[in-house]
Amino acid sequence: MSKLVGDFSERELIARIQQRLPQAPRWMAVGVGDDAAVVEPERNRLDVLSVDALVEGVHFDRAFTPPAAIGHRALAVNLSDLAAMGATPRLCLLSLVLPASWPVADFEGTIEGLLALAARHRMHVAGGNIARSPGPLVIDVTVSGTVKRRQISTRSGARPGDELYVTGSLGAATAGLEMLRDDAGSAGDHDVCARRYLYPEPRVRFGQLAARNRVASACVDLSDGLADGVHRLAEASGVGAIVHADALPIEPSARAWFDGHSGDTLTRTLSGGDDYELLLAVRPRARRRLAEVTRLGGVPLTRVGMCTTERAVLLRCGSGSQTADRDLPGGYGHFR
Amino acid sequence: MSKLVGDFSERELIARIQQRLPQAPRWMAVGVGDDAAVVEPERNRLDVLSVDALVEGVHFDRAFTPPAAIGHRALAVNLSDLAAMGATPRLCLLSLVLPASWPVADFEGTIEGLLALAARHRMHVAGGNIARSPGPLVIDVTVSGTVKRRQISTRSGARPGDELYVTGSLGAATAGLEMLRDDAGSAGDHDVCARRYLYPEPRVRFGQLAARNRVASACVDLSDGLADGVHRLAEASGVGAIVHADALPIEPSARAWFDGHSGDTLTRTLSGGDDYELLLAVRPRARRRLAEVTRLGGVPLTRVGMCTTERAVLLRCGSGSQTADRDLPGGYGHFR
Repeated sequence: MSKLVGDFSERELIARIQQRLPQAPRWMAVGVGDDAAVVEPERNRLDVLSVDALVEGVHFDRAFTPPAAIGHRALAVNLSDLAAMGATPRLCLLSLVLPASWPVADFEGTIEGLLALAARHRMHVAGGNIARSPGPLVIDVTVSGTVKRRQISTRSGARPGDELYVTGSLGAATAGLEMLRDDAGSAGDHDVCARRYLYPEPRVRFGQLAARNRVASACVDLSDGLADGVHRLAEASGVGAIVHADALPIEPSARAWFDGHSGDTLTRTLSGGDDYELLLAVRPRARRRLAEVTRLGGVPLTRVGMCTTERAVLLRCGSGSQTADRDLPGGYGHFR
Repeated sequence: MSKLVGDFSERELIARIQQRLPQAPRWMAVGVGDDAAVVEPERNRLDVLSVDALVEGVHFDRAFTPPAAIGHRALAVNLSDLAAMGATPRLCLLSLVLPASWPVADFEGTIEGLLALAARHRMHVAGGNIARSPGPLVIDVTVSGTVKRRQISTRSGARPGDELYVTGSLGAATAGLEMLRDDAGSAGDHDVCARRYLYPEPRVRFGQLAARNRVASACVDLSDGLADGVHRLAEASGVGAIVHADALPIEPSARAWFDGHSGDTLTRTLSGGDDYELLLAVRPRARRRLAEVTRLGGVPLTRVGMCTTERAVLLRCGSGSQTADRDLPGGYGHFR
């Protein structure tokens, strides 16, 4: 029979994490294993801090999410927040709330998935906590990154006339989740959509490049979907916005899936959050710098709309005499 | 009918937290409401980071834990970690995983309990996250404090011959929890034991004073009980230890309760973790400085044992020809 996490003590589980950690960097004065971690701040940088939880049954389903993907996604959602701020990832703390019946092999697989993504972003685990859950598995990750003061990008700097850009493509993770649900296990993570859902790549490098070159007047990550992101950016900046439905960079295989499965491609694309792309507001005069950053970053960027004086947040469908505007849905949903 | 948290969006719930926050300090460049918080590190200090989760049904029972006590305890367990490191609290991040059926008045009460304790320690909420729980309420708190490099106190500096001291008194929170369980609701939080369980006071100021005066060769917080703390300190320092059963500062009303309810006073005192006291190892020559810190800090200190060359961790009962040593229990329990 396979061993369960409930067969081990907290310190035995921590030891299994510790033996997978690379050597601690010099700036970590005290690492995993004491009451708290002690780290040296980076010179001439500000600290960027964020926390996000992944909850079983809400954000993932163990039936079709491999352990490595659970760990990957738990860190990715946080890296995406750092990316939006233009920060360089530095360290994370893991707070794990685990059902005693969870196989310890899955625990290890989850840790390995998280550590693999952390290593690629040169992020170190500085500490954490393990508690027992009488219910769902909860993985709470706190991340810390660094940024120069004049390179911080927030949600609130957009002005009327700024153009709105989206990185990469949208809809893939939503379609991927639907595919996985449809055919638990066998959809195969070779499919581009399922893979995007399971192993999203937050735009960390692009976010840093954009911040260093100060191309964005405002930036927000799309972990709750494009519609939500536009609403938040517009609200924080005190502007309105128009999003062009025809301009959205919908992932082709996602579009094919949506069209073939009950349609409503636009709504699913606007509300799907798991792509972890970024939304940027860009002053028209920064367009050339943006092109340069796009080239350097190797990330496609699509202009999807613009900021307006009028405070409404609208979705524009069609063009010319066929143009119709309606309120952009979403942005006020119940917590997820 | 009372409103439930599920009736609100995440941003509405966040707004209810925001309106209770004091003005953000100058060092917080970006606070609650963006993708991440941005803070200026404190000059010539290291950052001390810790995270701990409070899980309903594991660490507290809503039946007899008032909302304010849930919030208080969620922060206290983390402040105790900072206290053990000698750190000055600075900021916290709140990650809340909430059942939709939780009354919003209890949500607000919990936040107020947490913020009241935060305010007393001049700690600011820098950000957080709210997610839905399909099961128990989980409150995960990340704290950050600061410390001078030469004042860091860890678990690993004890040497044979160092004396072991405990702050305050032990057993009160364990007895308080038993009292509350016995008589849900009406045990009254006037009782010293119930109050200690519901509103523990982590030894933050004492921890700072001890660090500044460098009285401890090692320090650990007792959030998992004295036996666990002694084991951890001994293991990290590579020493053994002897704890004198007769010397333990058992809270008198807790002792009376234990004696009157199935006895086994010693075991319950050794394993009870919720008192949030500190265990310090002190070199004999630092004894005078320790007395001075004790006087300044206004916290009673009790010598409970000493560190030994022999690696065993023992409990010594009786004295003279009646002395009997046995292994100190605990320290390797399943995760809680």
